[in-house]
Amino acid sequence: MSSTAAPVPAPEILRSRLERAAAAAEKAGFDALFVTPGSDLRYLIGAVGGSFERLTCLVLPVSGNPTLVVPKLELPGYESVLVDELGVQAATWVDGEDPAALAAGLVKSAKRVAVSDFTPALHVLGLRDALSGVEQQLAGPVIRELRMRKDASEIDSLRQAGAAIDRVHARMGEFLRAGRTENEVAADIAAAILEEGHAVAEFVIVGSGPNGASPHHGASDRVVEQGDVVVIDIGGPVAEGYNSDSTRTYAIGTPRDEDVAKTYAVLQQAQQAAVDAVRPGVTAQDVDRAARKVIEDAGFGEYFIHRTGHGIGLDVHEEPYIVEGNELPLEPGMAFSVEPGIYQSGRWGARIEDIVVCTEDGVESLNNRPHELVVLGE
Amino acid sequence: MSSTAAPVPAPEILRSRLERAAAAAEKAGFDALFVTPGSDLRYLIGAVGGSFERLTCLVLPVSGNPTLVVPKLELPGYESVLVDELGVQAATWVDGEDPAALAAGLVKSAKRVAVSDFTPALHVLGLRDALSGVEQQLAGPVIRELRMRKDASEIDSLRQAGAAIDRVHARMGEFLRAGRTENEVAADIAAAILEEGHAVAEFVIVGSGPNGASPHHGASDRVVEQGDVVVIDIGGPVAEGYNSDSTRTYAIGTPRDEDVAKTYAVLQQAQQAAVDAVRPGVTAQDVDRAARKVIEDAGFGEYFIHRTGHGIGLDVHEEPYIVEGNELPLEPGMAFSVEPGIYQSGRWGARIEDIVVCTEDGVESLNNRPHELVVLGE
Repeated sequence: MSSTAAPVPAPEILRSRLERAAAAAEKAGFDALFVTPGSDLRYLIGAVGGSFERLTCLVLPVSGNPTLVVPKLELPGYESVLVDELGVQAATWVDGEDPAALAAGLVKSAKRVAVSDFTPALHVLGLRDALSGVEQQLAGPVIRELRMRKDASEIDSLRQAGAAIDRVHARMGEFLRAGRTENEVAADIAAAILEEGHAVAEFVIVGSGPNGASPHHGASDRVVEQGDVVVIDIGGPVAEGYNSDSTRTYAIGTPRDEDVAKTYAVLQQAQQAAVDAVRPGVTAQDVDRAARKVIEDAGFGEYFIHRTGHGIGLDVHEEPYIVEGNELPLEPGMAFSVEPGIYQSGRWGARIEDIVVCTEDGVESLNNRPHELVVLGE
Repeated sequence: MSSTAAPVPAPEILRSRLERAAAAAEKAGFDALFVTPGSDLRYLIGAVGGSFERLTCLVLPVSGNPTLVVPKLELPGYESVLVDELGVQAATWVDGEDPAALAAGLVKSAKRVAVSDFTPALHVLGLRDALSGVEQQLAGPVIRELRMRKDASEIDSLRQAGAAIDRVHARMGEFLRAGRTENEVAADIAAAILEEGHAVAEFVIVGSGPNGASPHHGASDRVVEQGDVVVIDIGGPVAEGYNSDSTRTYAIGTPRDEDVAKTYAVLQQAQQAAVDAVRPGVTAQDVDRAARKVIEDAGFGEYFIHRTGHGIGLDVHEEPYIVEGNELPLEPGMAFSVEPGIYQSGRWGARIEDIVVCTEDGVESLNNRPHELVVLGE
């Protein structure tokens, strides 16, 4: 369902983003960026929506005005974009015409262009063929340079999202009980995510017992049992489009597995070590290593089977990724998850996840629920 | 929210699809298909989900076993796929490894490959670079040859979806009244879409008064007024993943615009003419022309600003598109919308949309609510 009511940043903010994106594109050696609907386009011009089979594409040359190629019948959805202050022109097309040729015609002398990372292959190859002889690369590395450094209003939206999801975790005792299926619990949580101030209940993971050992499990018809450890990983966007994402691990009464308390203590220590490592100049990889070292030193290294975190903003997963090999030095305004986990296949799993922001002198956590294993139903 | 409970077609059905896809790929001159999560992957192996920044990709060579390249932590979500009867092997990777190289290594002697149409640019260009010197094209034209010819169980799912959305339209008097905002009406309709048997309320268009003249308007805070004409275009998938999509146009009491009755009669005649044109051997373009001729002959041609319809199945919009220039002859099992509209900019719009299936000797309509302008609130 399209939402015409989503708040749009002020034209001067968007105009500044467009100018900085053009400058970053030029610095990276591109003649133009081609940005299709999705988070990059929302960031640049405030337009909400996804990509479909009809091409909508912002063509942003490194010099000159940006142009939005858009199907004529979708033009009314872009009214807030096509305002004088923003300087974006529209080039419309109707069914039967070739929109890729229309877009390519806007950058006739281009030699090297970039397409947004989540542009569908349909349009990537359509543009490739329309831009014969032009080198095509990803726009992600250019746009992420802007998007991963959040301004104050973006951080504020993330802060609101974090507080909203904290309120849902605070209510977990209402939803999560022995005898209910994961799906029933998930449906109630989804409703609470909306009640507490999100625009969409984007994802709800209820991983009970052995399902908690699968980090990307969703929810199933498994009945939650007394003694289960349950991973609850939930989030979604607030109206401005910025996302929450927070995980807490719960126990239904006393955990049946005797290794839970000791293992969980290691996890808690690892998560805190990673949060404490965050400050300007520290690399993304260093934050991953801080968590991983604690877990490896305790002998659980093989059970921590994913990276420590991911950036968050208009996308739930975006740059910077907190992973071995990412030597990006953190800067103030970078927001990301810190979410180590320990997974005991076939038995139980645990994860603790907060969204944190790198500040001028350290770190601010946007999630502030206690980190301890929360025992429910006692 | 991932749904681990979605019904999966039987392995023998999926195996047959994989074999036919490989055969179609070979016929089209490809050495392999690369299919990322989305409707194509759901069609081929029953896996539900979308594409994210981590590469999951079914590599389907024209001979030999298909392999699912998948992040190790997402493997548990593919349990139903990795069964012996289906013959799909898994190749897992972990953060820090290069999944595009892993995928490319599975087809070392390939000269020409295809990627699924909605694969994100991130993975399209990743695979392009890993498959240096290999020609890369879209897999859509290959897979659509299978997907647009629905089998009996697929038609049955579409029939269920059609009946479910008909039940929502039948209840429209509960939701749509003067004095309510479009957003309020849309929220109630979304709830009814779920209540009547859909898995997701995928889209709800409530286009009241002048908003009805914008075909892709969503819903807004405009208050529905007495005398408004209102376009209601709604749908979503049932549990099996097949979608409904049906539009009816309503009037809140007597329409304030005096041209409504006469114009609507033309629209109704046009929609019926297009439905009546459907039978095997008739081209997609002929169906579009059948609707367009009625509207043009009545002098409203310039107000019918989109194609007549789109295929429907696991995607709301898929092949075959019912549009000028599409000379594809219809065959039994092809399912698509027939949805002409007439849009009077700034005043009102109207559209009538049914999903129909081409049968051995004609057409079956999956939506069966009356076509007349439905007057509510009298």
